[in-house]
Amino acid sequence: MQTNVGLLGYGTVGAGVAKIISLEDSLLSQKIGWSLKLSKAVVRDPEKHRAFTPPPGLLTTNPDEVVGNPDIPVVVEVMGGIEPARSFVLKALRSGQHVVTANKALLATHGREIFETALQNKKEIFFEAAVAGAIPVIRTLKEGLAANRIQSVFGILNGTTNYILTSMAQEGTSFADALGEAQKLGYAEADPAADVEGTDAAHKLVLLTALAYGVLPGLGDIRVEGITGLEALDFKFARALGYVIKLLAVSNLNPGDGRLEFLLAPALLPRDHLLAGVSGVMNAVMVRGHACGDIFLSGAGAGMLPTASAVVGDIIEIARIAHSDSPPTKPSLGWQNLKDEAVKPAGDIRSSYYLRFSVHDRPGVLSALSGVLAKHDISIAQVIQKGVNPETGSVFLVILTHATPEKELTAALVEARGLDTLTAEPKVIRVEDFLAV
Amino acid sequence: MQTNVGLLGYGTVGAGVAKIISLEDSLLSQKIGWSLKLSKAVVRDPEKHRAFTPPPGLLTTNPDEVVGNPDIPVVVEVMGGIEPARSFVLKALRSGQHVVTANKALLATHGREIFETALQNKKEIFFEAAVAGAIPVIRTLKEGLAANRIQSVFGILNGTTNYILTSMAQEGTSFADALGEAQKLGYAEADPAADVEGTDAAHKLVLLTALAYGVLPGLGDIRVEGITGLEALDFKFARALGYVIKLLAVSNLNPGDGRLEFLLAPALLPRDHLLAGVSGVMNAVMVRGHACGDIFLSGAGAGMLPTASAVVGDIIEIARIAHSDSPPTKPSLGWQNLKDEAVKPAGDIRSSYYLRFSVHDRPGVLSALSGVLAKHDISIAQVIQKGVNPETGSVFLVILTHATPEKELTAALVEARGLDTLTAEPKVIRVEDFLAV
Repeated sequence: MQTNVGLLGYGTVGAGVAKIISLEDSLLSQKIGWSLKLSKAVVRDPEKHRAFTPPPGLLTTNPDEVVGNPDIPVVVEVMGGIEPARSFVLKALRSGQHVVTANKALLATHGREIFETALQNKKEIFFEAAVAGAIPVIRTLKEGLAANRIQSVFGILNGTTNYILTSMAQEGTSFADALGEAQKLGYAEADPAADVEGTDAAHKLVLLTALAYGVLPGLGDIRVEGITGLEALDFKFARALGYVIKLLAVSNLNPGDGRLEFLLAPALLPRDHLLAGVSGVMNAVMVRGHACGDIFLSGAGAGMLPTASAVVGDIIEIARIAHSDSPPTKPSLGWQNLKDEAVKPAGDIRSSYYLRFSVHDRPGVLSALSGVLAKHDISIAQVIQKGVNPETGSVFLVILTHATPEKELTAALVEARGLDTLTAEPKVIRVEDFLAV
Repeated sequence: MQTNVGLLGYGTVGAGVAKIISLEDSLLSQKIGWSLKLSKAVVRDPEKHRAFTPPPGLLTTNPDEVVGNPDIPVVVEVMGGIEPARSFVLKALRSGQHVVTANKALLATHGREIFETALQNKKEIFFEAAVAGAIPVIRTLKEGLAANRIQSVFGILNGTTNYILTSMAQEGTSFADALGEAQKLGYAEADPAADVEGTDAAHKLVLLTALAYGVLPGLGDIRVEGITGLEALDFKFARALGYVIKLLAVSNLNPGDGRLEFLLAPALLPRDHLLAGVSGVMNAVMVRGHACGDIFLSGAGAGMLPTASAVVGDIIEIARIAHSDSPPTKPSLGWQNLKDEAVKPAGDIRSSYYLRFSVHDRPGVLSALSGVLAKHDISIAQVIQKGVNPETGSVFLVILTHATPEKELTAALVEARGLDTLTAEPKVIRVEDFLAV
């Protein structure tokens, strides 16, 4: 007895899946009760070099050899991108195939259509590898913590940007240099936009939100800020204030008004927070539930074998489902009952802020700026003023505020820009104190 | 439609389960598709005060109202202890009931019999709450990381002892004082033996080992050392050397000889290790797999609601299985195929050691001691010698060794005790460098 598995795509992740299925047959057979067999892998170019050499005859350019093939109960989509991945996944589900996918962009943008198609066809769609690589956060939300009213899910969901931010913090390098180094080491792609602009992490945050609250937000519900505007000197000021800077993804259910608050932006985190210690390409997720308290998960968020670990874990579970005497007619927990829920507009979300002003070095500057903040009811928690920059003749004034709605801060900044004391555009970064454990 | 649930025991955990099921009906109904109903709870004394007041008529002293009751498909054993828990669980499985248990002692000592009974009767037995409270480590090993050859599982599995060790490290208190404080706060029981002597953590290590390697070791395979012999001054020396002291549970598959190495003992851990930051009553587990790398999980390891979070998570999954049109005939992954595997005798396990000698303050002492170690091929990594203790006239000589088999160290210590320079029994603590990430 065996379960035939078809691959869509044979890039880095596909090669990792093939490697585990090929080399770990005795392990997998012991876990499942029978073997997995990789039947076919659909690729565009069968001649390309592969990170794990496929068995002869595995690669094909014809998707019909996998999608809709009645001999293949499990389709694994690791090709990435929206089309043709979307059409293949939908056709597979309609043809009675279970699907495993690592494609966060596809699920974040077409999840509703795909999940409903799976439900209608009583097929499973598993996607552990779509968020945080090898870290089993999807299962944790779907099953392990299912008894909890989830209050917050937050974390570091993109390894490329975390590598860059770690370099900037530890070595004082510029964003451009840290990005170049990450590209040289293979941690960043030639076109790094999806990572450094935050889109990749936002896709993952959509999926975590759906699992945590049963709400599938649109990407438009989440304001996304990347890390391209960060400067080395802000890491130094942050450190002096007791903070690190991380690209944080937050999905928080406000207990006061029951609305969801999203954050996908660089943020200052207290230095002793568990997430502050997550360095380099590592990912981490914290789930806060009413019964479980804070559960923290960390590990490798990307890479050939860590991602394949998650994909093959899904394949094992689906192989058992596909071969059970009667497959369950109830789909897996986690993505049915999607309901529309109020998402709080970004302007209404309260946060503390790190503000770095570049100002003329003359009397009355701090008084004028703090006056503007006070007028908007923004109170100040800490101030640092640094000596004159000899090149520009201006000084840095760094202010940490207490929590304020974003729109108040925005209005205050409009007013501050009108003062004749500013020599450059102020730098604004959120401070996430509310996550402290 | 509803799933009836019967409780065996209504102590702290049982009350937490009742609280979640009673107060979170809409959440649970949404997750499952129908309601859970608490039918009966078997207790010895129905008049006792309870942490969550049971609904009228819930409590009964007659186990037959739950065990073997055909109207109750799910039995939740939270009474603790071996008997009558063992008989009740076996009878429930044989009667066609699924079982959820939080009873690590029962599974660690009678797991084989219970798991085989479940398999024969095609019933599930779930036990997420038996290890590390709310942290979903059982599911992670059974499912999320199922594609991995596991190389190590290790962690901090007992919150009571971690609280005591954190107090001793942070406040310099003695073991007795820290234990007293923990008892006053309800973190330690009146009879703390199972916690402070390491038995509780050893039970959990048996279960993690079974899931990680498919091997159910006997308790006799694991040498267990508790924390009762630790002294405040060893925390100070450890800190000076860059380490913390934790009660570590380790189950390691030695890559050289393929044998399992267990450690359940206080150990020095590098200060910057993720586990070193796990404070107070928190628990944490690290799983090292060939594909996933190091996955770290931490959170609340005990307490009414965190433990109930894990129990109710299991109930939700079992409720879905019990009501599926045809329950799966394949049992859950993780505990079939138990195989006998060589366990390495403790004497053969290599480890680095922290040795604290109390010696006369006179020339030649270090030379004599280091000579004894050298004779047994034990090399020295670091030495600290501290000034004379005015009360005893002796000095402390702290030595960190490189890795050596335990039996070599034991032999060296026999010889060292023969030297006339020792003024007290040497203190020996393992140093776990090999776990560093």
